[in-house]
Amino acid sequence: MSGLEKMLSPKATAVVGVSTSNPFSPGNVIFRKLCFENGIPTFPINPKGGTVEGQKVYKSILEAPDDIDLAVISVPSKYVPGILEQCGSKKIPSAIVVSGGFSEIGPAGAGLQKEIIDVAKKHKITMVGPNCIGVFVPDKLDTFFLPSERVARPLRGNVAIISQSGGWLVERLEEFASRDLGIAAAISIGNSAQTNVTDFIKHFGKDKNVRVILAYIEGFGPNEGREFVEACAEVAPRKPVIVLKGGDSEAGHRATQSHTSALAGNSVIAAAAFKQYGIIQAVDEDETMAYAKVFSFNPRLMKGSRVGVMTVSGGHGVIASDEASFYGLEFPSFSNEDQEAMREVMTPAYRGIASFRNPIDLTGSAADVDYEQVLRIMLGLDYIDSALLLLLPYAPGISLQIGARVANVTKQFNKCVVAYVPYLDKYEVILRGFELNGIPVGDTIEEAVQMLNGIRVRSKFLQQIGKL
Amino acid sequence: MSGLEKMLSPKATAVVGVSTSNPFSPGNVIFRKLCFENGIPTFPINPKGGTVEGQKVYKSILEAPDDIDLAVISVPSKYVPGILEQCGSKKIPSAIVVSGGFSEIGPAGAGLQKEIIDVAKKHKITMVGPNCIGVFVPDKLDTFFLPSERVARPLRGNVAIISQSGGWLVERLEEFASRDLGIAAAISIGNSAQTNVTDFIKHFGKDKNVRVILAYIEGFGPNEGREFVEACAEVAPRKPVIVLKGGDSEAGHRATQSHTSALAGNSVIAAAAFKQYGIIQAVDEDETMAYAKVFSFNPRLMKGSRVGVMTVSGGHGVIASDEASFYGLEFPSFSNEDQEAMREVMTPAYRGIASFRNPIDLTGSAADVDYEQVLRIMLGLDYIDSALLLLLPYAPGISLQIGARVANVTKQFNKCVVAYVPYLDKYEVILRGFELNGIPVGDTIEEAVQMLNGIRVRSKFLQQIGKL
Repeated sequence: MSGLEKMLSPKATAVVGVSTSNPFSPGNVIFRKLCFENGIPTFPINPKGGTVEGQKVYKSILEAPDDIDLAVISVPSKYVPGILEQCGSKKIPSAIVVSGGFSEIGPAGAGLQKEIIDVAKKHKITMVGPNCIGVFVPDKLDTFFLPSERVARPLRGNVAIISQSGGWLVERLEEFASRDLGIAAAISIGNSAQTNVTDFIKHFGKDKNVRVILAYIEGFGPNEGREFVEACAEVAPRKPVIVLKGGDSEAGHRATQSHTSALAGNSVIAAAAFKQYGIIQAVDEDETMAYAKVFSFNPRLMKGSRVGVMTVSGGHGVIASDEASFYGLEFPSFSNEDQEAMREVMTPAYRGIASFRNPIDLTGSAADVDYEQVLRIMLGLDYIDSALLLLLPYAPGISLQIGARVANVTKQFNKCVVAYVPYLDKYEVILRGFELNGIPVGDTIEEAVQMLNGIRVRSKFLQQIGKL
Repeated sequence: MSGLEKMLSPKATAVVGVSTSNPFSPGNVIFRKLCFENGIPTFPINPKGGTVEGQKVYKSILEAPDDIDLAVISVPSKYVPGILEQCGSKKIPSAIVVSGGFSEIGPAGAGLQKEIIDVAKKHKITMVGPNCIGVFVPDKLDTFFLPSERVARPLRGNVAIISQSGGWLVERLEEFASRDLGIAAAISIGNSAQTNVTDFIKHFGKDKNVRVILAYIEGFGPNEGREFVEACAEVAPRKPVIVLKGGDSEAGHRATQSHTSALAGNSVIAAAAFKQYGIIQAVDEDETMAYAKVFSFNPRLMKGSRVGVMTVSGGHGVIASDEASFYGLEFPSFSNEDQEAMREVMTPAYRGIASFRNPIDLTGSAADVDYEQVLRIMLGLDYIDSALLLLLPYAPGISLQIGARVANVTKQFNKCVVAYVPYLDKYEVILRGFELNGIPVGDTIEEAVQMLNGIRVRSKFLQQIGKL
């Protein structure tokens, strides 16, 4: 097993820096998580000894039992090199350093960071951090020092998230959790003094539980950019790699430097390289979530950019058109013959007020059955590569069954279908009806269009490398 | 009183097109709302007579009592001209036509639309619609045919919304309601055969209960564009007018035409005209909500574009920098002297790991008091026009009091302050703490930056016309 593999499924761990007086200190939060939630034998360390949560505190890691796979270190920065030395003597293969006070604070901390890199290298310790919030694998490993009542933990899923920013990662966790989207792992790499985003791309590339890899990057050190894209190129034919790059503006560069002291590269060059190597670049948090979510569904691909759109509100068709046009997706006009065929299957009472151009506006009078029937015709057209359903459950004729009914129609075609349902508690059951049947749902019209764009971008890449 | 004034505060109304057999028909939903929720004497009309909800149904509007201020018409389109004639004989000054089947379905409906325009003109009836979902004034008038369990109604507030798309309007209502943002009125103008968006701009421009006007537009008929911007120019010095224009893409144009058959103008020309006349143009739903929300707070203005940013997560500073740069907002560097002054007031234990460049990163160790102290110095700087607080309540040192404490500091300065708090139930009380004390809060970092941009755009306009 590699150091990373041991780190992510440790048989025993130590938490260096628990407090015997403050149960809310970062070390104590981590200790309780590992010991009581993850059920991993975990040894608390503090030079003063004593007990924590009824368990013996060891005065140093040297005194703790053997066969520890992971040490989580949360002590003032000046003590970290010494503790890593002890981990080395103890043959502990991996360490997560959550402490801050390294290169992110300037020259003083940079020296200390160099020191811990050297110690880790000398002892062949796989080290994540420093200045990170930790690592989280649902039901398995939680070294986040932020308690669950402050930061939500998503359920188990297939998206692996790697982030250079702890704050950004925390927000994604909240977002995934609030949308019931699962994750396979969440990694805060902090200053990535040693283990960096590329190492995790390689790791998750081979992990069969991971279907989508999502990385937030602010910059690369020397040569790191090239290594990163090459690692992604290796993985991209098998699974989507989504990257959001922060710090592209000039002010962003400055913010980046005071943050993880990473070197923000030229954004245009980076974007071109990302594209060439099959990386799907998101430009903001919304695209990030849209891409991560849609690929977690393992969607069917799009052989072309042509989308058929169905809505019950003309205004939503307009918004979708604008958005799709921005992404280069096309809404081809339906032939007169095809329009007539669609009108034929529509409930007679409402035929007259519906419009069958693309986007199709079934109007607020449409019912489930109209959706089904018209969709069946639309998906059968050879000049349509995918369907976008703008589903406004405000229309009284739309029932809670709509998702399952639509899914039954889509199963008959090898084309991807994405829906939009407003994200409101009262429509939860409608949304679930789609998603449980494999149709990804966007919270906004924009998100649904972005989902299709993500699929199209990936499909193009797979076409280029002859895999579609 | 003008026709619109009578329409929006009617003493008595009639609903033409109630069903005696289907209590869920649009007419019945409208009847129940007006009669039982708004408490307005309301007369149901159906040629068959009978009773509805225990009330006598009149066979025609001619038989109903006199002094009706508003007729809401929900019958198949072919009957609408005749009913409007009856409204004329009955001297009813205003009508809302929710029926579809007019110009939006093509030439057949266009003739019918011309007909109702002529009848309304002949009898001097102020008419809204056809093909609209109605008009809603909180606690006062609700002619929406979508029941409340399908579409939320926001609380009373100061934002007036006018929309060419019923679907778009419905979504904004859901969004305002879910965010506890109040509205002054919501108007679905449908095909705006007679009364159009300009008429409502003028009306709400004079309404002292309206602080912000928000309009969704897909296009203008001949000359309507010029009249619209001129009406806005009249209103803009007094209150912000925010416009979102749909249908700017080519596909969007086609969708627009099958929707309200409005003529989508050249988007570049429109954007230039909007700017010249002091209209704040939003490019998407997110900007729309950000601008509407921030102006509903009547925020302090920004004399320049310089923003001081405080965060507890470096990554969030980076994201804000990128976003602000896109909008032309500047994050000037703080002088070494000012940085030192900030460091001085910070809790000694955490001084060493905080960064006082702009964005300031107080780190996850910061507490309420650090926010207060550093903010006080920042707002006092003469090269800072506004403050952006990226508040991540994940940081354990931040308490539920933070909003009130920060607001107390900002009261001492004539500079606008906008905060970001992630929109999660568990932080509701923190968010309220800010907003009850007059500090607008964005749900996302982007929204908070967009709020500042809205303020800056309006401030520039007011500077140009010598009002700031």
